[in-house]
Amino acid sequence: MAKEKLKEYAIIGKPTPNVDGPAKVTGEAQYTIDMTLPNMLYGKLARSPYPHAKIISIDTSAAEALPGVKAVITGKDTPGGKYGLWRRFRELSDQECLATDKVRFIGDPVAAVAAVTEEIAIQAVELIEVEYEPLPAVFDPDDAIEDDAPMVHEDFPSNINATRHIEWGDVDKGFAEADYVREDDYVTQPIHPAALEVHNSLASYDKGTGRLTVWSSTQSPYFLQLGLSDALKMREGDIRVIKPHVGSGFGGKNSTMPDSVNAALLSIKTGRPVKIVYNRDEEFQTTEHRTAQHMRIKLGLKKDGQIVAMEVKTIVNGGAFTGLGATDLYLTGTFITMPYKIPNYRYDGVRTYTNTVWGTSIRGFGSVPGKFCAETQLERAAKDLGVDPLQIRKMNAVYPGYEAPGQYTFESCGLLPCIEKMETRVKEKWPKLEEDEGIGFAAFAYMSGGIFNWIDTPYAFSSAHVKVNIDGMVDLYTQASDIGQGHNTVAAMICAEELGVGIEDIRLHLGDTAHTYTDLGAWGSREVLMNGNAIKDAAAQVKNKLIEVARLKLGENIAYDLVSKNKRVYLELRPERGISYYDLVQDAIRANDGVPITGVGHYTPHNKGMISPAYGTGIMAVKAKTDKETGAVVCQDILVVHDCGQVINPLGVRGQVEGSIHMGLGYALCEEMPMDEGNVLNPSFVDYKILRTRDMPEIEFIEVPTYEPNGPFGAKEAAEATIAPTAPALANAVFQNTGAEFVAPVLKPETVLKAIRAAAAKKQGK
Amino acid sequence: MAKEKLKEYAIIGKPTPNVDGPAKVTGEAQYTIDMTLPNMLYGKLARSPYPHAKIISIDTSAAEALPGVKAVITGKDTPGGKYGLWRRFRELSDQECLATDKVRFIGDPVAAVAAVTEEIAIQAVELIEVEYEPLPAVFDPDDAIEDDAPMVHEDFPSNINATRHIEWGDVDKGFAEADYVREDDYVTQPIHPAALEVHNSLASYDKGTGRLTVWSSTQSPYFLQLGLSDALKMREGDIRVIKPHVGSGFGGKNSTMPDSVNAALLSIKTGRPVKIVYNRDEEFQTTEHRTAQHMRIKLGLKKDGQIVAMEVKTIVNGGAFTGLGATDLYLTGTFITMPYKIPNYRYDGVRTYTNTVWGTSIRGFGSVPGKFCAETQLERAAKDLGVDPLQIRKMNAVYPGYEAPGQYTFESCGLLPCIEKMETRVKEKWPKLEEDEGIGFAAFAYMSGGIFNWIDTPYAFSSAHVKVNIDGMVDLYTQASDIGQGHNTVAAMICAEELGVGIEDIRLHLGDTAHTYTDLGAWGSREVLMNGNAIKDAAAQVKNKLIEVARLKLGENIAYDLVSKNKRVYLELRPERGISYYDLVQDAIRANDGVPITGVGHYTPHNKGMISPAYGTGIMAVKAKTDKETGAVVCQDILVVHDCGQVINPLGVRGQVEGSIHMGLGYALCEEMPMDEGNVLNPSFVDYKILRTRDMPEIEFIEVPTYEPNGPFGAKEAAEATIAPTAPALANAVFQNTGAEFVAPVLKPETVLKAIRAAAAKKQGK
Repeated sequence: MAKEKLKEYAIIGKPTPNVDGPAKVTGEAQYTIDMTLPNMLYGKLARSPYPHAKIISIDTSAAEALPGVKAVITGKDTPGGKYGLWRRFRELSDQECLATDKVRFIGDPVAAVAAVTEEIAIQAVELIEVEYEPLPAVFDPDDAIEDDAPMVHEDFPSNINATRHIEWGDVDKGFAEADYVREDDYVTQPIHPAALEVHNSLASYDKGTGRLTVWSSTQSPYFLQLGLSDALKMREGDIRVIKPHVGSGFGGKNSTMPDSVNAALLSIKTGRPVKIVYNRDEEFQTTEHRTAQHMRIKLGLKKDGQIVAMEVKTIVNGGAFTGLGATDLYLTGTFITMPYKIPNYRYDGVRTYTNTVWGTSIRGFGSVPGKFCAETQLERAAKDLGVDPLQIRKMNAVYPGYEAPGQYTFESCGLLPCIEKMETRVKEKWPKLEEDEGIGFAAFAYMSGGIFNWIDTPYAFSSAHVKVNIDGMVDLYTQASDIGQGHNTVAAMICAEELGVGIEDIRLHLGDTAHTYTDLGAWGSREVLMNGNAIKDAAAQVKNKLIEVARLKLGENIAYDLVSKNKRVYLELRPERGISYYDLVQDAIRANDGVPITGVGHYTPHNKGMISPAYGTGIMAVKAKTDKETGAVVCQDILVVHDCGQVINPLGVRGQVEGSIHMGLGYALCEEMPMDEGNVLNPSFVDYKILRTRDMPEIEFIEVPTYEPNGPFGAKEAAEATIAPTAPALANAVFQNTGAEFVAPVLKPETVLKAIRAAAAKKQGK
Repeated sequence: MAKEKLKEYAIIGKPTPNVDGPAKVTGEAQYTIDMTLPNMLYGKLARSPYPHAKIISIDTSAAEALPGVKAVITGKDTPGGKYGLWRRFRELSDQECLATDKVRFIGDPVAAVAAVTEEIAIQAVELIEVEYEPLPAVFDPDDAIEDDAPMVHEDFPSNINATRHIEWGDVDKGFAEADYVREDDYVTQPIHPAALEVHNSLASYDKGTGRLTVWSSTQSPYFLQLGLSDALKMREGDIRVIKPHVGSGFGGKNSTMPDSVNAALLSIKTGRPVKIVYNRDEEFQTTEHRTAQHMRIKLGLKKDGQIVAMEVKTIVNGGAFTGLGATDLYLTGTFITMPYKIPNYRYDGVRTYTNTVWGTSIRGFGSVPGKFCAETQLERAAKDLGVDPLQIRKMNAVYPGYEAPGQYTFESCGLLPCIEKMETRVKEKWPKLEEDEGIGFAAFAYMSGGIFNWIDTPYAFSSAHVKVNIDGMVDLYTQASDIGQGHNTVAAMICAEELGVGIEDIRLHLGDTAHTYTDLGAWGSREVLMNGNAIKDAAAQVKNKLIEVARLKLGENIAYDLVSKNKRVYLELRPERGISYYDLVQDAIRANDGVPITGVGHYTPHNKGMISPAYGTGIMAVKAKTDKETGAVVCQDILVVHDCGQVINPLGVRGQVEGSIHMGLGYALCEEMPMDEGNVLNPSFVDYKILRTRDMPEIEFIEVPTYEPNGPFGAKEAAEATIAPTAPALANAVFQNTGAEFVAPVLKPETVLKAIRAAAAKKQGK
């Protein structure tokens, strides 16, 4: 067969409004937070006020006596299962249903209440008396690895939660051969995903069958099923997880969380449905955020700008639990090298347990802090060496077939064409800058789903079941998650394209573990490639059966190829000779003794390295204005050139690019989570600043697609990559205009002013 | 392979409590009538007070103006689709969404209202002003076929809705050779199924996707999907039907009814969920009942009691629409011959349209009125000829392999052993009768699902999808219906037995058209055999894949057979050599590249005659006491001997036998629906008498199982057969004691007294 390439499709690549858009804009769409069940109770968690303390005693009698309270549970009422996402190494399943012996961060749940109203549940929580013995606590990752540091988990050898060493080439030799070496320290801040729908779960236990159903605002029904299975010591198959519409996750809804576990425990205890909804304070104080890092980078270059060696050390403030933090640590070590050819590389990452809420896998995880550091450092090096910022990126850019030994391979790669497009477009777009303006660049790359099986699933990474009914309607069943990113639409488009039918012929059944084959959920930009491949596989099986029937009906020369497109199956070279899809389906089902035509497709990456089967890449330019008197930075304009493979839905990609840049700019300008001894100081939308629509600059988005052989129709990661370059491109714009160097992304006026003054002093000193 | 036969199973045949029993007894089980949805409206129907009238005009303005009313629709607001179960002949799709030009029975819906409360909807219905022009009406089936009778459906050639002629042998010759010929007239009364959950539906239309979801108290989600598709002119796949728990159907919930259609139309119009619940008056006045028949039977026998010829003529009061009435007409002509060898037979049945609510397929449909007539007539003949009632039944009993030419074949048949068992058991049980006591017998047979495809489905009659997951949990998906008869439990048992696992390993997904492969629903005792075969097929596919993996793992001699039983796969002849099912599943899924092991099974009867693939059979004895002064009859004791093949769940069969006899005794003693010009006179449980628990006699139930080769594990029809013999056995008991002959089943004291006096007069006259 000829090698596939980019081509015109009937559906793929056409701007397609979200299939669930009308339901969402009319308010008809149901989120977990909207749901109630008959006889439902409201749950609430009692949480630790201490970052680290022994639990001496818990007195729940007053809470239990409160009228309307139906159940109060503490650690001793739980089955004692420990859970976490890193199931491959069971010692990393470090979360408890409820804290038993001690609490490990402010907000660690110690008891849970179910009552007939939420108000009574809150009152009851206040009546629970917990006697604590405060313990010395540790908050700083550097302190955490000292020998005498307080231990966060006594059953763990030390506070070192995870380490990661990556190395290729000969790093010392590389630096020895470098003309120029620069080493810098960075400290990146934690930020919160700030999903508009808070964590919430509704659990309903059926005493008769011993089976549990949980509706939850989750990114992965499968992960939640596993988490609950471990926590509750129940059989996976006795737990059904349903993901209704989700008011976004941004990485913060992969882990099983206490809302789900305790709603389940309370439902088991009471025999009634129980719902737990976090308030915004709980959301900020106790749910996962983007991890803070202390990073040191050493870069060695030839004087023309060619990178010869790189060394990265990072220590991560992991917080109380693992979550996906160990993955984040690994990915940080790989994504920081992308998208550049680095012949000699060494990485040492350490993730520490501390007594704070834990950090994990927020949007662009593994790439956002590291890329800030690496791209600003590269910019400094370019300036020091007198090399043009685009030129230095072009010279070091990865190319199709590039391999980081033993780690990753770029099969498709449009980075060079992206940079070339950027060169011409920047000149057209911004021919002249004002005195207070600068342009900054950052290149980027991101994965299309992960390979390493930390969740320890025995299942294919994605699967899909396709069934064609007598009226041509296609049922598509898969566990894949739409969490607002538009995967429902993408799934329907891929299925429709492969079968040659219309979007309106597809009936979606996603995100319910009881009716679908496994998919690992929405994280790391995995659904398009992995679920897309599984859907395409299933649909192709069905299509091939239909084509077989069409061959029988048409009786044409065996040498002719048949295609299914636009609701017809016909001879590729004689399109007028064909048969209607709808007629064909009737024949096929009758010939199949009345059984609908079905396929079960699946996808697991094999022999694709350690990270991902494919990478989206590209380059971003930011034009910014800096007020040198006040330090105020305005991001004026953004230009992104992105190779995201064959775009499935241009409307979806555009929306996701805007969303990623919005979050990237928040990280660059205002979002942070200051903590005081483990206490998050700004746990509300009054104090935690996210950008409003009117704060956003114009974004020009140019696609430079390549055909990705591992993706469905050549598709791969799109848009998640564009969060990481936003902060460094902005910092680089300010740097180009003012010379100011930044050790952290948040360009608040005081930070900027200080950096401008430091730069001026340095220049004068020089 | 050796011919299969009755054997010991791990699960099949063991008394098994219903899997949904706890949910039902604790009240947790959700029925449609329990359901609400956010933003839901309440619908109500405006109904005709006339049995037959032209609609001149409908003024809905006052109703629309009532605060809280959200929509009012009349016939002109409907898409004009006509619907019905006999889709194979489209002229029999005779139901309208709402009556347009004229109304055809008292209660025919002419308008529908949706409002924010049910009270407002009722008020609004009262405000709808309909101007009618009453038309001459016809209520009696004999009148209906007169040339000058008012036409119920003008677009139909006459009021003859359906006719059926059946004939085999040479009937005239048969009667000529008979020693004794007797001809009698009968008139059977209509009765209502009186399900405790009334008809009700909840419809929710999604404007964004144009798709409709309907929850309904139905016996067949698939039939309802088809009915709605025809009525609303929507694509089948755009309609999802979900059957929650159902508070019984008894045959009255096969047809698509105005509650479903109009809830859907109102939801489409308002964009909000709409629920319509019938009140008990509507339930009695406007929903389907067991058809009244005027029947004449002529029976010719040799003097030893051997039947040589039979001729049956019946005219059925069909009412306004077809429903399943045309099927009932056909089945009446066949079941009336069972379970006897009748060498020469002729049947002519006519179903008439009249201006009453229509009659259709109530429990034991096609057999109940006819069997009353035939079994009482046979008893009279036996007495006239001086032949023992059991002897005459034994002599004429069908046997394994008996074929009624072109109509039906009994493959398995335990009737003779049943009668022999009855002979001995009756002597033991009732050695001596009091003066006012008598024993009556009636033999019986009934189908295991129907063959004739009146619904015109292109799908297999039943299908099932089985999926084995990594923890050994088995998902069983099928559209089959549990409507209270216990099929959820039977489905789980069949699946568990075939796979060799436990009931607790089965997770059921039944009765939702969106997640299952087609099954035609619960009627005519079809689920055990048809759905059971489909489940067994699917499970066997999975089992065979597991056995293949077990062969690879065990590496034993190819000649050994492997079996899967009690959660192990092992060598049949060396049970100690085997592997745990749970371990095997893990291996099998891993070897299958992480995809669960699945099978899609199906069943459609092929080459099994016109009626059914298999028949349950047996004989019933009733001991009754008759007060000759008052005519009061007491049914004292019942003995049933039943060949129902391999019993799947003895508890379920026992329950169904009791239920069938309860309904049969109601038919025999007190249930009736007197009508006055189409007006049902007793539309409430105050006036419509059904037997209470304390009115029920003891029932002794003896199984005489045979192995039915067409059924799963040898299973076939069970218990539905036992409704039909109840009334004739009771009448025969009174006849044996008093000589009273009955032309109708309802043995009310005045009827009995009259019959006793007539018998006495006849005897005297003789």
